[in-house]
Amino acid sequence: MAKKTRKKLGLPPGSLVFTGKQKIDKVLINYLEYDQENYRTESPENDSFATLHQPVDNLVQWYDIRGLHDLEVIQKLGTTFHLHPLVLEDIADTQQRPKYEEYDNGIIIILKALTFNTTEIRVKTEQISVYLGPDFLLSFQEDKTDLFHLIRERIRLSKGRIRKKHADYLVYTLLDIIMDSYYIILDKIELEIEKLETNIIENQDKNCKSEIHQLKQEMMKIRKCIAPLREAISRFSKSEHDLISENTKVFLRDLYDHNVQLLDTTENYRDMLNSLQDLYLSEISFRMNEIMQMLTLITSIFVPLSFLAGLYGMNFEYIPELHFKHGYFILLAVMFLISGSMLYYFKKAKWF
Amino acid sequence: MAKKTRKKLGLPPGSLVFTGKQKIDKVLINYLEYDQENYRTESPENDSFATLHQPVDNLVQWYDIRGLHDLEVIQKLGTTFHLHPLVLEDIADTQQRPKYEEYDNGIIIILKALTFNTTEIRVKTEQISVYLGPDFLLSFQEDKTDLFHLIRERIRLSKGRIRKKHADYLVYTLLDIIMDSYYIILDKIELEIEKLETNIIENQDKNCKSEIHQLKQEMMKIRKCIAPLREAISRFSKSEHDLISENTKVFLRDLYDHNVQLLDTTENYRDMLNSLQDLYLSEISFRMNEIMQMLTLITSIFVPLSFLAGLYGMNFEYIPELHFKHGYFILLAVMFLISGSMLYYFKKAKWF
Amino acid sequence: MAKKTRKKLGLPPGSLVFTGKQKIDKVLINYLEYDQENYRTESPENDSFATLHQPVDNLVQWYDIRGLHDLEVIQKLGTTFHLHPLVLEDIADTQQRPKYEEYDNGIIIILKALTFNTTEIRVKTEQISVYLGPDFLLSFQEDKTDLFHLIRERIRLSKGRIRKKHADYLVYTLLDIIMDSYYIILDKIELEIEKLETNIIENQDKNCKSEIHQLKQEMMKIRKCIAPLREAISRFSKSEHDLISENTKVFLRDLYDHNVQLLDTTENYRDMLNSLQDLYLSEISFRMNEIMQMLTLITSIFVPLSFLAGLYGMNFEYIPELHFKHGYFILLAVMFLISGSMLYYFKKAKWF
Amino acid sequence: MAKKTRKKLGLPPGSLVFTGKQKIDKVLINYLEYDQENYRTESPENDSFATLHQPVDNLVQWYDIRGLHDLEVIQKLGTTFHLHPLVLEDIADTQQRPKYEEYDNGIIIILKALTFNTTEIRVKTEQISVYLGPDFLLSFQEDKTDLFHLIRERIRLSKGRIRKKHADYLVYTLLDIIMDSYYIILDKIELEIEKLETNIIENQDKNCKSEIHQLKQEMMKIRKCIAPLREAISRFSKSEHDLISENTKVFLRDLYDHNVQLLDTTENYRDMLNSLQDLYLSEISFRMNEIMQMLTLITSIFVPLSFLAGLYGMNFEYIPELHFKHGYFILLAVMFLISGSMLYYFKKAKWF
Amino acid sequence: MAKKTRKKLGLPPGSLVFTGKQKIDKVLINYLEYDQENYRTESPENDSFATLHQPVDNLVQWYDIRGLHDLEVIQKLGTTFHLHPLVLEDIADTQQRPKYEEYDNGIIIILKALTFNTTEIRVKTEQISVYLGPDFLLSFQEDKTDLFHLIRERIRLSKGRIRKKHADYLVYTLLDIIMDSYYIILDKIELEIEKLETNIIENQDKNCKSEIHQLKQEMMKIRKCIAPLREAISRFSKSEHDLISENTKVFLRDLYDHNVQLLDTTENYRDMLNSLQDLYLSEISFRMNEIMQMLTLITSIFVPLSFLAGLYGMNFEYIPELHFKHGYFILLAVMFLISGSMLYYFKKAKWF
Repeated sequence: MAKKTRKKLGLPPGSLVFTGKQKIDKVLINYLEYDQENYRTESPENDSFATLHQPVDNLVQWYDIRGLHDLEVIQKLGTTFHLHPLVLEDIADTQQRPKYEEYDNGIIIILKALTFNTTEIRVKTEQISVYLGPDFLLSFQEDKTDLFHLIRERIRLSKGRIRKKHADYLVYTLLDIIMDSYYIILDKIELEIEKLETNIIENQDKNCKSEIHQLKQEMMKIRKCIAPLREAISRFSKSEHDLISENTKVFLRDLYDHNVQLLDTTENYRDMLNSLQDLYLSEISFRMNEIMQMLTLITSIFVPLSFLAGLYGMNFEYIPELHFKHGYFILLAVMFLISGSMLYYFKKAKWF
Repeated sequence: MAKKTRKKLGLPPGSLVFTGKQKIDKVLINYLEYDQENYRTESPENDSFATLHQPVDNLVQWYDIRGLHDLEVIQKLGTTFHLHPLVLEDIADTQQRPKYEEYDNGIIIILKALTFNTTEIRVKTEQISVYLGPDFLLSFQEDKTDLFHLIRERIRLSKGRIRKKHADYLVYTLLDIIMDSYYIILDKIELEIEKLETNIIENQDKNCKSEIHQLKQEMMKIRKCIAPLREAISRFSKSEHDLISENTKVFLRDLYDHNVQLLDTTENYRDMLNSLQDLYLSEISFRMNEIMQMLTLITSIFVPLSFLAGLYGMNFEYIPELHFKHGYFILLAVMFLISGSMLYYFKKAKWF
Repeated sequence: MAKKTRKKLGLPPGSLVFTGKQKIDKVLINYLEYDQENYRTESPENDSFATLHQPVDNLVQWYDIRGLHDLEVIQKLGTTFHLHPLVLEDIADTQQRPKYEEYDNGIIIILKALTFNTTEIRVKTEQISVYLGPDFLLSFQEDKTDLFHLIRERIRLSKGRIRKKHADYLVYTLLDIIMDSYYIILDKIELEIEKLETNIIENQDKNCKSEIHQLKQEMMKIRKCIAPLREAISRFSKSEHDLISENTKVFLRDLYDHNVQLLDTTENYRDMLNSLQDLYLSEISFRMNEIMQMLTLITSIFVPLSFLAGLYGMNFEYIPELHFKHGYFILLAVMFLISGSMLYYFKKAKWF
Repeated sequence: MAKKTRKKLGLPPGSLVFTGKQKIDKVLINYLEYDQENYRTESPENDSFATLHQPVDNLVQWYDIRGLHDLEVIQKLGTTFHLHPLVLEDIADTQQRPKYEEYDNGIIIILKALTFNTTEIRVKTEQISVYLGPDFLLSFQEDKTDLFHLIRERIRLSKGRIRKKHADYLVYTLLDIIMDSYYIILDKIELEIEKLETNIIENQDKNCKSEIHQLKQEMMKIRKCIAPLREAISRFSKSEHDLISENTKVFLRDLYDHNVQLLDTTENYRDMLNSLQDLYLSEISFRMNEIMQMLTLITSIFVPLSFLAGLYGMNFEYIPELHFKHGYFILLAVMFLISGSMLYYFKKAKWF
Repeated sequence: MAKKTRKKLGLPPGSLVFTGKQKIDKVLINYLEYDQENYRTESPENDSFATLHQPVDNLVQWYDIRGLHDLEVIQKLGTTFHLHPLVLEDIADTQQRPKYEEYDNGIIIILKALTFNTTEIRVKTEQISVYLGPDFLLSFQEDKTDLFHLIRERIRLSKGRIRKKHADYLVYTLLDIIMDSYYIILDKIELEIEKLETNIIENQDKNCKSEIHQLKQEMMKIRKCIAPLREAISRFSKSEHDLISENTKVFLRDLYDHNVQLLDTTENYRDMLNSLQDLYLSEISFRMNEIMQMLTLITSIFVPLSFLAGLYGMNFEYIPELHFKHGYFILLAVMFLISGSMLYYFKKAKWF
């Protein structure tokens, strides 16, 4: 999470600074236009996209940009599409908190896509920015993998309502698919939690500690991605902006409900992890105490016996018992009796 | 809770996906119509229900569907009754958070029915969806058991106000009976908590740990069902929708009060469980420490005695005490004195 | 708190179900009417009260009913005074959360009277319902003891403002006297807490644990009675209902302030109890550890001495020290030196 | 805090009951009047103040009353200045929560003055009530010490703005001086916390426990005085009452900011105390464990040596080692080796 | 934080009191004026600045004052620029909570600049006040180091938008650069946390305790600087004051988002530190217990052996085993067997 110091101290606000790691060699741009009848896709070279853009009525024009490190490209996009300087800054700064902001001629939504690596128990985040302009939609991904190929496919096959709707509905579908991926992450995490729970209750695995710690950290990261989305989507769904139709708002409210549910679930998992950690700690300390108790019990049984043995090892001139005929065997019997009754008492008092 | 991954990633929003386990072989539909004078019931075959529906003034028409796995049936219902695609998606997705949503021509309420298995200490949830349309009411249950047979009976016998009222009042009674079942669940859980409390205080039962853990998990589940209902019912009771009469709202506010009370109670039980867990842990650690203390006490009493015995077991040429006449008995007396005074001191200092 | 399962599952809403224990043999009704000049009291038989009621201008007519188990009586009252079915249900259900509800022709306030049994450390609750109608006031108590006799007395003696005011002011005085009784309860609990504190700090009493646990449970109960009152009184004091005059609202706001103060105090006591429990636990564990430390210290002082004794108890043919003239005494001196310096070191290092 | 049971159960609301301890023999009244030119002070006898009061335009008339136990005096004041009965009740009840209330012809502010006794670590509270009427100001102190003498002095010397302003500004200065005294208290408490911190980290002082407990209790008391002031001052500063000028509100908002800052600081100190307590407990338990570890280490080093000594103290007829020439010295060497390597191993494993 | 008692008790409100430490010898004043074409800078002597100020249309006039101890200078500034007395008081009182206040003819923003000393793990705060008047801007720093030299540079070089904008935009850039410095502090703290985490997990460093404690304290300090800023910036960005243009508000909202993100991060770090502390404590106690367990295990293995040795060291006349030919060796074998099987059992039961 750290080591990515925002290097912009002293730069003018609105300065473009890329704050992430470069995850892709060369910026990829994917252009797609569609309405109910038409469908066309293109992958323009970096320099040519600017001339591409010609607004057409009711035609959705979607530019999907992958890779944010090439600030020149982003700057050009800004000029072509008349983006506010703060929008450009937000897109390039991959450490943005999820947010929704309206400008006179467009709206921007920034959120995080998540992937979960089960073996390392580590969540990776990728910043996704979606800008909805009056006659176009820009989406920005950090990475090479195309999170939106399912939607592209759906548009191509004209499945669902999507071809009949405007760009605002497309924004919704983009958000929806990312939100769906959260469910998958959380399901994986739930599996991890259940594995841990079994491990703790059945195997008293001593290594759970760092795994729980790790999972708690990752849950924090996830929460940080989901929680601010709530307000963002809420404001989106209540927006009075011209670009968002009433029809789409029903879907956005549904999205909002999903987000609340996700947030509930993360809270739930956090509680479960805390409760698991408590369980683990008490389990471990319980077991350690039990061992100590057993060991101490052994000692305390032999201590009186040793004393007796020591007693008859003394060199006093006159110790009558030493001269009894079966003294040794009587003592052995007495020792047996002592240890036996101690064990009996301890058992009865449930000391072991 | 887990392992039921929502499989819809990439599907268009509003796609019907059944996310639960199939709990019933074949979808059962139960049709009931009534007004103040008339009462008729029917169990149509799956395919025929569509033709059944003919709106009649002031006649309440209630379709109760049990079983959600057959998406075709749900789709048909959607077409017949003009349901919004998101409504259908919500009904089929049995992992919905309790919610209330208004559409132009109807309202949907989704909530959870709970059953509690005392022996396993496990809560099972069943999703109930109630859709109120302009001249009909649809209710969806996941399972075969009919949660609403008492209401059906009440309608048949014309008990209470129900036959004089409209469909919105019927919605209220359906919610009310589910809410009442929550009280029963919580009473059962309270019994479990009291049993645990007695167990801990009187028997120091070591197995309480996992039971407490289990109960806490189940309380979380219950809370997850009750808490979001608060907002849902609140919005319901304040709705300005044409389908809800002012008369019914008084009852809905009462329902809201009950919900708040239930929520209070769950919070209370959660606190009680936490407090119980603390009590349990301190009880256990207290007891373990007491045992350790006793064992250590035994050791520390014999250690000086053993030392004395060892002392007179030495082989020095000249140890005068060894040649005293009653040396052995004097030593025994001294030992008795030492251990006696140690015990006396420990007792007085309340060390055991 | 448990075992009083609401038995109404499946009954129509508004059904009268008595959910408490019968605390009185026969329902007692006490009637009192007064204005600035007139004062009359009566104790009608159950059946005759209905005919009693004849509204008179500016005459306050107060029916105080003790005992809720006889549902027939309550039903009759409902009919006579035109109470909403939900009002009757709320009155009979003694497990109501404190609440305030307005109806067209009246308002209902439900709250809990508390009594505290110091020896058992147990709080008992009694549900009080007060219904203010257009020209009458109904109050319901569960128990035989008359919580309101001081007010009756005040009316008789015409002390204070009460005879000059209307029924809404009477409602206020009823609430006020119950609120005052909360102060008394909390004072008693504070005394208990202080006793516990002294016990823990001075006597390290081991039995405090269950007392603290008990007090915490009772504080929860009290909180459950006081907390919801806040909203109830707030709504009462802001009500626009015709039955409540502006003059009375000043008093209600004062009541609200008292409630907030009470709530603060309960929060405070809860914190104090938690802090006390922490203190107790750390005190106990501290003391146990101290004992263990002392015992272990005894052992660790004798262990080297015993070793030395054992050393010279060996049967080697040639151990020169055994033949020294004052070997035994030299060894005793050495042992004395060792144990002495160990004690000195431990003391200096503050090990005991 | 306890033992001061409000004795008013059953008394009519608005009854005057003095709930504190009498802190002064005889009620002292101090009268002061001033405007930009005039200044006059007087200390009327109890009975004469009533005739004193003659409203003069733009003349601030300030009655400062010290001592609340003489209810007759307060009652007289109430009659002379037309105070609402609830105002009088609030003034006499020294256990009031800080509050602000508006009446038709005046406003009342009740707050607590604090003093801190460093040696006992105990906070004392004194209730201050300030009533602002249309042409006068009444202030009530419980105690003999005059908290306001600095302000009186300032008025006399005509320092600052005070002589040019109206009575509402005087109210502000009274509140301001009490608020300033809170800063002093909190500074003293911070000193205590820092002392404690040093004590814990450097000296591991075992007596810190009760001091921390005590300080936490006192912080609670302070918080109880400061927290409700926030709302009171907020309402004061937003008041639309005729008696408060717009000019004064700027100062009240500043007061509000100070109050928020004070509240922040108390929260901060509470956190610091909690964190200190955790530190203390872990420090103590850490140290105790360390001691136990050292003691156990001693034991476990000598135990094998003792065993060896015991071995060669056995009386078997044939133990060859006993007859070796340098058997004893070889054994001593072996023992030295064993204990040495144990120590070496323990050291290396950082066991001590 | 302590020892800087506000010395103003009893002084009139609005009195100038400098509450910090003097960090600079002599007050430095830096004057800068600019519009799109002009740029001029000057460092007036203390006494001359008053005559400097001549409002010019659209010319931004910025006075940057470093050093607050010379109250005469501040008083003069107050007179020259018609500052409200409370503004002056706030500027001189370096213990102000971050705040935003509007006056008729200007707005004041007070916030804290932070620096972090990594070796001492200590955060230092410096109070920054910015006053925006109708045709000028005053900024106050406590210290000699100029936090704003980057902005001065940017104005000189005419980088970014800054020369085209008004004074309100300059206020924004000043806030922005301080906010940016918070990011740097938090990054440094994250590094510290990560170092600690590694230390704890890998090295079980016993000194982490005080470092964690220290970091937690510093996080509290930082939080205290950032949290109140949220409300301040929020009110700034929603201000209807004439001095703030709509254009600037977009930037202020962006600033608000950054502040929220910073606050989130501090909360996150606090959680991480708490979680780290838990990890540390459990790690330490875990390790201590493990050591104790090993030591006790050693003891409990030798105790039975010592007993056997003692047994055959007894001086009974008739102990048959003593006369067996290979008695000694048989016993050695038995001892070996006993200790071996104990070790085997302990190993199998995972006791070490």
